[in-house]
Amino acid sequence: MIKRIGVLTGGGDCPGLNAVLRAVVKTAIVKYGYEVIGFKDGFKGLVDNKFVKLELDDVSGLLDRGGTILGTSNKHNPFKFPVNVDGNTEYKDMSKRVLENLDMFGIDCMVFIGGDGTLTTARDLMKMGIKGIGVPKTIDNDLSGTDTTFGFMTAVYTATEAIDKLHSTAESHHRVMILEVMGRYAGWIALEAGISGGADVILIPEIPYDINKVAQKVMERKNRGKSFSIIVVAEGAKDVEGDMVVNKVVEDSPDPIRLGGVGNKIAAEIERITGIESRVTVLGHLQRGGTPVPYDRILSTRYGVHAVELINQGKFGMMVSLKGNRITEVPIEEAVGTLKTVDPDGELVKIAKSLGVGFGD
Amino acid sequence: MIKRIGVLTGGGDCPGLNAVLRAVVKTAIVKYGYEVIGFKDGFKGLVDNKFVKLELDDVSGLLDRGGTILGTSNKHNPFKFPVNVDGNTEYKDMSKRVLENLDMFGIDCMVFIGGDGTLTTARDLMKMGIKGIGVPKTIDNDLSGTDTTFGFMTAVYTATEAIDKLHSTAESHHRVMILEVMGRYAGWIALEAGISGGADVILIPEIPYDINKVAQKVMERKNRGKSFSIIVVAEGAKDVEGDMVVNKVVEDSPDPIRLGGVGNKIAAEIERITGIESRVTVLGHLQRGGTPVPYDRILSTRYGVHAVELINQGKFGMMVSLKGNRITEVPIEEAVGTLKTVDPDGELVKIAKSLGVGFGD
Amino acid sequence: MIKRIGVLTGGGDCPGLNAVLRAVVKTAIVKYGYEVIGFKDGFKGLVDNKFVKLELDDVSGLLDRGGTILGTSNKHNPFKFPVNVDGNTEYKDMSKRVLENLDMFGIDCMVFIGGDGTLTTARDLMKMGIKGIGVPKTIDNDLSGTDTTFGFMTAVYTATEAIDKLHSTAESHHRVMILEVMGRYAGWIALEAGISGGADVILIPEIPYDINKVAQKVMERKNRGKSFSIIVVAEGAKDVEGDMVVNKVVEDSPDPIRLGGVGNKIAAEIERITGIESRVTVLGHLQRGGTPVPYDRILSTRYGVHAVELINQGKFGMMVSLKGNRITEVPIEEAVGTLKTVDPDGELVKIAKSLGVGFGD
Amino acid sequence: MIKRIGVLTGGGDCPGLNAVLRAVVKTAIVKYGYEVIGFKDGFKGLVDNKFVKLELDDVSGLLDRGGTILGTSNKHNPFKFPVNVDGNTEYKDMSKRVLENLDMFGIDCMVFIGGDGTLTTARDLMKMGIKGIGVPKTIDNDLSGTDTTFGFMTAVYTATEAIDKLHSTAESHHRVMILEVMGRYAGWIALEAGISGGADVILIPEIPYDINKVAQKVMERKNRGKSFSIIVVAEGAKDVEGDMVVNKVVEDSPDPIRLGGVGNKIAAEIERITGIESRVTVLGHLQRGGTPVPYDRILSTRYGVHAVELINQGKFGMMVSLKGNRITEVPIEEAVGTLKTVDPDGELVKIAKSLGVGFGD
Repeated sequence: MIKRIGVLTGGGDCPGLNAVLRAVVKTAIVKYGYEVIGFKDGFKGLVDNKFVKLELDDVSGLLDRGGTILGTSNKHNPFKFPVNVDGNTEYKDMSKRVLENLDMFGIDCMVFIGGDGTLTTARDLMKMGIKGIGVPKTIDNDLSGTDTTFGFMTAVYTATEAIDKLHSTAESHHRVMILEVMGRYAGWIALEAGISGGADVILIPEIPYDINKVAQKVMERKNRGKSFSIIVVAEGAKDVEGDMVVNKVVEDSPDPIRLGGVGNKIAAEIERITGIESRVTVLGHLQRGGTPVPYDRILSTRYGVHAVELINQGKFGMMVSLKGNRITEVPIEEAVGTLKTVDPDGELVKIAKSLGVGFGD
Repeated sequence: MIKRIGVLTGGGDCPGLNAVLRAVVKTAIVKYGYEVIGFKDGFKGLVDNKFVKLELDDVSGLLDRGGTILGTSNKHNPFKFPVNVDGNTEYKDMSKRVLENLDMFGIDCMVFIGGDGTLTTARDLMKMGIKGIGVPKTIDNDLSGTDTTFGFMTAVYTATEAIDKLHSTAESHHRVMILEVMGRYAGWIALEAGISGGADVILIPEIPYDINKVAQKVMERKNRGKSFSIIVVAEGAKDVEGDMVVNKVVEDSPDPIRLGGVGNKIAAEIERITGIESRVTVLGHLQRGGTPVPYDRILSTRYGVHAVELINQGKFGMMVSLKGNRITEVPIEEAVGTLKTVDPDGELVKIAKSLGVGFGD
Repeated sequence: MIKRIGVLTGGGDCPGLNAVLRAVVKTAIVKYGYEVIGFKDGFKGLVDNKFVKLELDDVSGLLDRGGTILGTSNKHNPFKFPVNVDGNTEYKDMSKRVLENLDMFGIDCMVFIGGDGTLTTARDLMKMGIKGIGVPKTIDNDLSGTDTTFGFMTAVYTATEAIDKLHSTAESHHRVMILEVMGRYAGWIALEAGISGGADVILIPEIPYDINKVAQKVMERKNRGKSFSIIVVAEGAKDVEGDMVVNKVVEDSPDPIRLGGVGNKIAAEIERITGIESRVTVLGHLQRGGTPVPYDRILSTRYGVHAVELINQGKFGMMVSLKGNRITEVPIEEAVGTLKTVDPDGELVKIAKSLGVGFGD
Repeated sequence: MIKRIGVLTGGGDCPGLNAVLRAVVKTAIVKYGYEVIGFKDGFKGLVDNKFVKLELDDVSGLLDRGGTILGTSNKHNPFKFPVNVDGNTEYKDMSKRVLENLDMFGIDCMVFIGGDGTLTTARDLMKMGIKGIGVPKTIDNDLSGTDTTFGFMTAVYTATEAIDKLHSTAESHHRVMILEVMGRYAGWIALEAGISGGADVILIPEIPYDINKVAQKVMERKNRGKSFSIIVVAEGAKDVEGDMVVNKVVEDSPDPIRLGGVGNKIAAEIERITGIESRVTVLGHLQRGGTPVPYDRILSTRYGVHAVELINQGKFGMMVSLKGNRITEVPIEEAVGTLKTVDPDGELVKIAKSLGVGFGD
């Protein structure tokens, strides 16, 4: 018999986290009469016992707010928890502390909202006896076990708006404009935003690119009277040599990948090969922020409500999931560990190629 | 062997029509070497022989433009075509003229982009021997045979933004704000925008409402310290008496439903019952306009490309369709004539009810 | 020596009210060490002693939120205050109560944020001895004594977006689309949004229109091959006969002007004269809502800071004001009672006419 | 007697250029019956005789389109014009060619739309006898002789939206988020967007910053329980040592300033001093793109109309200008050569300081 549930948000922030929290709290309190405890800053709050009781008023007005009111962290795995020992950081297994804390505060089960890392940790805690439900979160949309995750569509929206904006400069200045978007291992944002924004070239990790073929596409356009081109590139795109770009000269900076990322490499090479001015924009953190688009608000809400329904049905160890148009659930075990990447021969890539989009292959 | 294809857009305009046209033209010309002829103003152009050859340059920059460059009409059914006879409008069967025209200009097959009306007409023309492919369009998302149609998500976006805006006035003035959205027979826009915008009450044609229960929900909120409420109502919502509202005193105006619509009726009744100031906003044509959101741009593009693929495969008589995440096709015959309405016991309604949303039932 | 200041927001809500409150509270507390008391729902809170102490945390995150956290009312003039007497509403002079309340709670002076009505009342209270500063607020931008008021630019933005959206439908359907915007006595929103959105006809209260000249402009466009027209009309526009439109058949509805407003009258007449389909959209409350645009956030902030500076300088009886690019102040006395209307021979009207825009004159 | 006027757009692109072109063409043709010739890619088209006749249809629909349909260039000064000589670029004085071209095509006068560089060149051409009118353009708003230039407000809007988006990530992750915006010599965008977005620190070229004072502001906030901070920095901000940051390791890249700009330097230093995670976003080209906001559409339109009025009045050598709310004109001579920078003791900086914003001074 469930009386009190806990909830946390882990990993990078994502539009829709607050909407999930709102749906969890409203459904838990109004429909089932559960109490809800929110842990602060992901697993950190679970180890350090930083939490807050969540009431209806706390989630009022959250639907359209980006970020997470609980805070989040991607550095506090309870199995390798950073502990300050004589001024140095050591990593210790604090997982038993988590169990003790949940027991002490009478928390019957947890809702873990997070990506592959958070859900893997959640699974390992569940093996120790914690009851839990997973809610998938990844801005990159690369989680197995669900068709879509919230936040992704907002990121596609932000990236599409950026392409729309770059278009006018590209055309006015006869330039190649390159937009570098998120996607370290999977190119979903680049692919969908590229189609949505009418990009001429889309480069993704799943399809290694030959820079000469990219340049050729740009020149083909020029020869047809189109003096500009738009290239969308996922941060994890790699050329046919197989190496992902990490610009060594700046790697000791706080943000190494962004600084000397693949977008800059491509710009330099395209300009060298074609002689056409090329400029890069790195979209970066803007993709994570802002109010979620309606698609994500609805998906987040469905996830949050369904997570509480699963608790009510006692279906622990499951992750809520979207399959086609239907909200369902899959074992967390099946959802973690494998990335969902773009199929180079799949429909979306074919669609783009039918329109003449180049992938550098 | 296909050489020249025709295309037309029929019925009310919808964000994404131009994106479909762009995808059809690009795929047809670049991938298959077809010529593309665009007929003007729906079936009117097909009868009156008003057309334009569509080249790649004509569809450049169309992805983010609302409306349709071909123009559209919802009054020119070739089987009952309005003809001016001595100053009076008579309706004649001009369907043979359509066949003659297509024959005369060497058009091998047609792409019909439209809703239930347009596709029913298309089906009837196909029975006379025309080869055709259907592309489903309905802002209300009420077409059978496909999970989603383009333009719908943009309308949900526009309606959600409107709810977000009404929120601040509702709260500042302690009012009931009512937003009337499209949906004469199906409440999809009201339902999804209502969930997405955090409405307190959602009224749709599929669930007849009892105004006293609506008022009761408003008063419950007031008693909990929430001095305002947001109601989203589909234009076709009807009360438990079963009559759709048509305000008779203004029915000879150019826009009768909008003027004295259900939103106004509800506002008057809520204000009378609860004593709380109630205000209506009728979103109207704003829902059809503007640049399509990325979801719709991508869906439109997939539809347009797939329509040409079906032509290439000789699969005439089919309508492109989204099933889950997959683009496929269904016989037009199966897609027309039946509306896809909201299931009052379906998941989305349940989700909303779990959050405490009232439906007046 | 000032220790405690009060603040209220009166009249219709407007984007930027919260930004003013934030600036007042931050400047008062951080820079001058004043305490700030916020009265609820305009003058109602001042009579009924409903207030809240405003701390820095209360105004955190307010910059981009529409509405007013204090609530507002346009029905509670302390000189004619509605009082329930045996179930009937009677109006009594409660102005002395206001003085007693301010005295009782040690409020040294007030910041009155509101339009002509609110500031007139404020002036009358000041004649009784209350020290006060005015902050001008009018979505219509029709207040004398200042070049611009916050919220107006946000309304122009919303109306421009609406015109952009109506454009695609107008063009696709070959229709006349009419957008009715706010402006009962002054046509600023219609004029600026009309220029910004590229309207073909702009109708404002300051320039009585001849419907035949409006129809003529529509026909001129049609004859030049432009099959559609966009008309922006202020709600207070009147024809050369001189009567403002109030549709009598619906005047007992909760929202009489909106229902049978001037937009509908014009649509009916244009359709009758030209034979071209005409459709109306009434923008209504959407103009008041939503997050303020940067222009308004900055102006609100400047107003709020300057109001507190005036308190510090002891310049009571003044209203903050924008003159050109400079924030300054004018006596409230001079600012109220006279509307700032559009000059029919002024630069903006001339600009529009140079572009071929019709005003129906 | 003027019969034919020429127009060109020079320098970096800017939202509103097309709106100016539309206003020039409409006013010239409809009101005065002039012919309009548009030169391509700034002064390049004037030397190379690349031009197009502009008709009403060419400027239809331009009001809301970013960029410039004429194209632009910031590398083609006719006095030092790049010429290919045996495969090498040499710079020659081609100014006489300009005069010959204008004479040959019967162009009576020119409208030069551009920034300090373009207008300086225009002035020098006028000294040789060309009649011309200037229209000021600078995204940075740093041109003397006018209060505001079009495009600037759109850039402030884009930067404010970016701050709004970074807010949620900053708060959720307890980070310092740094937004680097345009402004090499003047900090107007950083200042106005910083106030509008509620930044905690604003760093501009006009106020050299001490990084320790910036860090101190961040720590003050942390000590007050605000675990995050937002810093907006103009690309030209410099520390008290006086050197603008140019990261040498990447200076041979296509986009040196952007790569190793001041934002990255500040992030590294703040993280080092405070120990708080700091992240940079470089807004870059996104500020130049997209549809102009209504403020800029109106200002562009007023500029364009007034430029043609000045031609009609024979007031050559003047630049259109906004003074307060009034469109007027100033001698081009007075407008070029001096930058309009932020006054460190001016009202806007004081406003920001009253709210507690730090400037690192």
